[in-house]
Amino acid sequence: MPCPPGVIVDISTVIGLVIGSALVAIAIVIGDNPGIFLDSKSALIVLGGTLGVTFIKNPLGRVFGTFGVVKNAFFGKVTPIESLIEQIVELSRKARRESLLSLEKVQVEDAFLSKAIRLAVDGMEPAAIKTVLETEVSFLAQRHKIGQDILDGMASSAPAFGMVGTLIGLVQMLASMEDPSTIGPSMAVAILTTLYGALVANLFCQPLAEKLKNRSRDEVNARLVVVQGVLSIVEGDHPASVEQKLAAYLEPKLRKENQAQAA
Amino acid sequence: MPCPPGVIVDISTVIGLVIGSALVAIAIVIGDNPGIFLDSKSALIVLGGTLGVTFIKNPLGRVFGTFGVVKNAFFGKVTPIESLIEQIVELSRKARRESLLSLEKVQVEDAFLSKAIRLAVDGMEPAAIKTVLETEVSFLAQRHKIGQDILDGMASSAPAFGMVGTLIGLVQMLASMEDPSTIGPSMAVAILTTLYGALVANLFCQPLAEKLKNRSRDEVNARLVVVQGVLSIVEGDHPASVEQKLAAYLEPKLRKENQAQAA
Amino acid sequence: MPCPPGVIVDISTVIGLVIGSALVAIAIVIGDNPGIFLDSKSALIVLGGTLGVTFIKNPLGRVFGTFGVVKNAFFGKVTPIESLIEQIVELSRKARRESLLSLEKVQVEDAFLSKAIRLAVDGMEPAAIKTVLETEVSFLAQRHKIGQDILDGMASSAPAFGMVGTLIGLVQMLASMEDPSTIGPSMAVAILTTLYGALVANLFCQPLAEKLKNRSRDEVNARLVVVQGVLSIVEGDHPASVEQKLAAYLEPKLRKENQAQAA
Amino acid sequence: MPCPPGVIVDISTVIGLVIGSALVAIAIVIGDNPGIFLDSKSALIVLGGTLGVTFIKNPLGRVFGTFGVVKNAFFGKVTPIESLIEQIVELSRKARRESLLSLEKVQVEDAFLSKAIRLAVDGMEPAAIKTVLETEVSFLAQRHKIGQDILDGMASSAPAFGMVGTLIGLVQMLASMEDPSTIGPSMAVAILTTLYGALVANLFCQPLAEKLKNRSRDEVNARLVVVQGVLSIVEGDHPASVEQKLAAYLEPKLRKENQAQAA
Amino acid sequence: MPCPPGVIVDISTVIGLVIGSALVAIAIVIGDNPGIFLDSKSALIVLGGTLGVTFIKNPLGRVFGTFGVVKNAFFGKVTPIESLIEQIVELSRKARRESLLSLEKVQVEDAFLSKAIRLAVDGMEPAAIKTVLETEVSFLAQRHKIGQDILDGMASSAPAFGMVGTLIGLVQMLASMEDPSTIGPSMAVAILTTLYGALVANLFCQPLAEKLKNRSRDEVNARLVVVQGVLSIVEGDHPASVEQKLAAYLEPKLRKENQAQAA
Repeated sequence: MPCPPGVIVDISTVIGLVIGSALVAIAIVIGDNPGIFLDSKSALIVLGGTLGVTFIKNPLGRVFGTFGVVKNAFFGKVTPIESLIEQIVELSRKARRESLLSLEKVQVEDAFLSKAIRLAVDGMEPAAIKTVLETEVSFLAQRHKIGQDILDGMASSAPAFGMVGTLIGLVQMLASMEDPSTIGPSMAVAILTTLYGALVANLFCQPLAEKLKNRSRDEVNARLVVVQGVLSIVEGDHPASVEQKLAAYLEPKLRKENQAQAA
Repeated sequence: MPCPPGVIVDISTVIGLVIGSALVAIAIVIGDNPGIFLDSKSALIVLGGTLGVTFIKNPLGRVFGTFGVVKNAFFGKVTPIESLIEQIVELSRKARRESLLSLEKVQVEDAFLSKAIRLAVDGMEPAAIKTVLETEVSFLAQRHKIGQDILDGMASSAPAFGMVGTLIGLVQMLASMEDPSTIGPSMAVAILTTLYGALVANLFCQPLAEKLKNRSRDEVNARLVVVQGVLSIVEGDHPASVEQKLAAYLEPKLRKENQAQAA
Repeated sequence: MPCPPGVIVDISTVIGLVIGSALVAIAIVIGDNPGIFLDSKSALIVLGGTLGVTFIKNPLGRVFGTFGVVKNAFFGKVTPIESLIEQIVELSRKARRESLLSLEKVQVEDAFLSKAIRLAVDGMEPAAIKTVLETEVSFLAQRHKIGQDILDGMASSAPAFGMVGTLIGLVQMLASMEDPSTIGPSMAVAILTTLYGALVANLFCQPLAEKLKNRSRDEVNARLVVVQGVLSIVEGDHPASVEQKLAAYLEPKLRKENQAQAA
Repeated sequence: MPCPPGVIVDISTVIGLVIGSALVAIAIVIGDNPGIFLDSKSALIVLGGTLGVTFIKNPLGRVFGTFGVVKNAFFGKVTPIESLIEQIVELSRKARRESLLSLEKVQVEDAFLSKAIRLAVDGMEPAAIKTVLETEVSFLAQRHKIGQDILDGMASSAPAFGMVGTLIGLVQMLASMEDPSTIGPSMAVAILTTLYGALVANLFCQPLAEKLKNRSRDEVNARLVVVQGVLSIVEGDHPASVEQKLAAYLEPKLRKENQAQAA
Repeated sequence: MPCPPGVIVDISTVIGLVIGSALVAIAIVIGDNPGIFLDSKSALIVLGGTLGVTFIKNPLGRVFGTFGVVKNAFFGKVTPIESLIEQIVELSRKARRESLLSLEKVQVEDAFLSKAIRLAVDGMEPAAIKTVLETEVSFLAQRHKIGQDILDGMASSAPAFGMVGTLIGLVQMLASMEDPSTIGPSMAVAILTTLYGALVANLFCQPLAEKLKNRSRDEVNARLVVVQGVLSIVEGDHPASVEQKLAAYLEPKLRKENQAQAA
């Protein structure tokens, strides 16, 4: 179950969002009266209430920052671990053959690996490199955690405000129940808010929070490979030894292919 | 996702409370009969029941103390960590250039930093300073935790009493169901209690508990920076070393800006 | 948020129970037909079912023991920590001035402190005193935990049996629905069981379990102060040192007042 | 809150089951039409579905093994800890006065104690005795844990299948709603499944799982006393020292009585 | 409660699935109108929505990989621990009598044991064998964990989409409630989605997730026996010592039989 390259990760999310939304849309459009499913008051209560609660819980900066984290997590690229290991082993060969400084001109696509190499080339102490990189990884994980907490919080507030909207609608309907023929449509509108809340929570917030968690784990893992790898290079380990150390981050199956390719 | 200065933190809470309450109010006022949404009996059961349970669970002093904790947490100022670090580094420069005693006349806005400096100037041992300050931090965290537990408890009691009120209303309505035309309004009133319970829990208690948790984490972090910083000053660390130690509490991005400013 | 003396703790519980029960009672009495809210069958199912399940889960002795634990926890006295510290410091002064044996005739109100002093006066080894007292504290905490578990279990069983009773009532009503005019009252009675279950759980069992948890924490803390204090006395610590050690159990604010009084 | 001897433990469970079942039965029989509460289809869905899910989750052997664990836990005897300690102290006296081998002919009722003595008499090393007995205790705890997990799983599946049955009944009723007079009885039958699910979960599975947990804790504790005691005997401890060591497993109150008796 | 050989494990799952599905099918077929229970729109919303959410949460590769993990877990063979121990003890006898290399030609059914022996015969260092095998075990556990998380996620999404479908159906029904005679069938169809969601979650996803967890524990245990056993062989332990070490993984009862057989 290897994690495929970043682009495919996003494809999975997009496919999931499309399937889920499309099926709900189809179920609605098939019915007689699809227009009734659009109700701005219901949308305002659910979305506004959820957003309001999110602002109460978190400083403004953190809420807006979450949009960035979510966007980054879905559109930012994650270099797959097996490709990172290959590149690092290649770099360790070059560093051994020529010198650590020769890595200065190497072009690396992965931004974090590139930064790690720069620190190494700049002659920073291994301990200092470790501290700098690991702090960055831990703050990345923390930012992801905050984003995840905010999405999880929205996933639990949305159904609550869905229920609030439905209760308001029910009270209004029951209080002025003169014409029985209006009961149906009024109740339909009242129930809509619950539906909106359920969709916002179960189709968007909760799955995205879970995605962020999975993605964060993959990204943190990939960065730990970089930290370990660059430290090995700086300490002048033999390329074979570098590869062996990093292989611990790979699944057994991938590991063998990797060793075969490296051989 | 830096935490902006204290004032903005409060703005976020106020904005959230306003958005959430306004949307609910609008949804109610748009309807035919907004007056029906005010019902003192429902309010009494939900608020009184929730308060009663809170008193059962906690000593009076702790319940009233919570109001103070909540008020403090929302209106008290939190000096941002980057500003604290700047001030502490400045103080360490002054202590080095002149002497530790020279800090006596320095005016510092942050109350906790000011207290920590006073202890240092009074010639207290570093170990004793650490104990005194850390105990204070741990009691602050404990007070916040108690406040959070009380708010969380209210968030779980309010919907329960909302349901109790609705059940009472339903039983009364069903027991005397002679005139069918009164069923609607009676049921509307019965449902109101559930609505009140949902709003008290989801719009006020639960978000404020969460806010207190987030705020407590930021405040404890800021105080730990002060403890670490003042200890470094007392031990005569070089300002650059003080700055480096404290930088571990900062996000990488902020750290660089900070270092640039300090350079 | 200091914990006020034991008597006030109980006042808080009594106030809470009175407020909660009174509001529910008022809501019921205001209605047309308060008599309908009393139904022995509903009470039997909820109370009997909850008690039955409690007996299934726990040995008889433990269930009856819980009444004692609950009673003790609400009516037993807790000496406030600041008063305990004062007394212990006073005792340590006396022991220094005269001798450890001179404590034999001292009258101490707190039962646990009194017992601890007796052990010290009897010449028991400090390590043995520590073991004896700490085992007693841990068994106290365990008894409280068992009581809390039983109350929590009742809080989760009561609504379940409330639902069982309502389902039984609904089935009976639906099965013999010949005369539509009886539907209302039958359903009212059926719903009553759910109301009883909600009240038993949310107004009594759950809050009392929480209270027991809070109270247990305070009581265990107070006893740990006694253990620490008496050990300090036996080891002949200076009264000032005894006071300093115990101050760690006090909030910073109280600590200063305390030191001021002691000065 | 001492745990009374094994037989009384079972009495508590029996009393609880009788009270709970009797009250539900009375509530049903009091009604007009008790026969309607028996419905084989509803029973099949709830019991069959719950059993089916239990088989999916666990190997057959483990499910059937659980019946044995449950039976053992309710009808097997647990020797109370205070009696075990008395017997062990008695044995340690005999072993000191005569010899370890003299224990060979002693008749002990508790099976685990008897086995432990046999190992000791056979001249096994203390370390080996400890390993053998502790492994047995840990496998006992594991068997109890598996039984508890299975009962807990049933407690969560039963209401789910109750709801499934009710939904099936509702769909059937709504689909063929020609004669309004049949709605009541059909709905009554549909609701029955939910009632069955609630009873199976809340009156049987969940309480028995909890009982097994409590019982397991008592039984493991009793066996640890035996392990500790027999090791003390093998190592030739003085009976007073054996008693003192084991007293740590007793509540302070019982301990004093015990020491009084032993004196 | 020994875990019987792999084949029987699967029989248990198959029996459970058959019992559960059959009972639900019977309850449906007994009714007047079984055809109404098939509704493609409801199936699309529940299955499609659940699948969509699963894709949002996880990379495509991982979702498809789960099918393999699930299939493997149900149809792959697990050699029972007692048989593994017997084989390993036999191998250790052979290795002692002849040589480690003599194991090369031995045919072993269990794939993991076979691989472990190959590593040993190849002359790998014990530490390296341990690392290689333990990494493989930990990745197996991780794959199982991912599969279990995906199934658990589906078990919580399915009822949510069941509710979404029912809400959509209710809104459509209420919005066009001209002909009262269509209310019944429309509502029946609306409720169907909830039924589908409940079945997918409670009869399939949740039990299979639990099964995977139980199975994973057994499989990991069996592999740890192999790791421990092959290391003992490589280090030249006496067969009796090998057997004693591995017996710690067996229940006391089985252990004795095993020793009896081995004797």
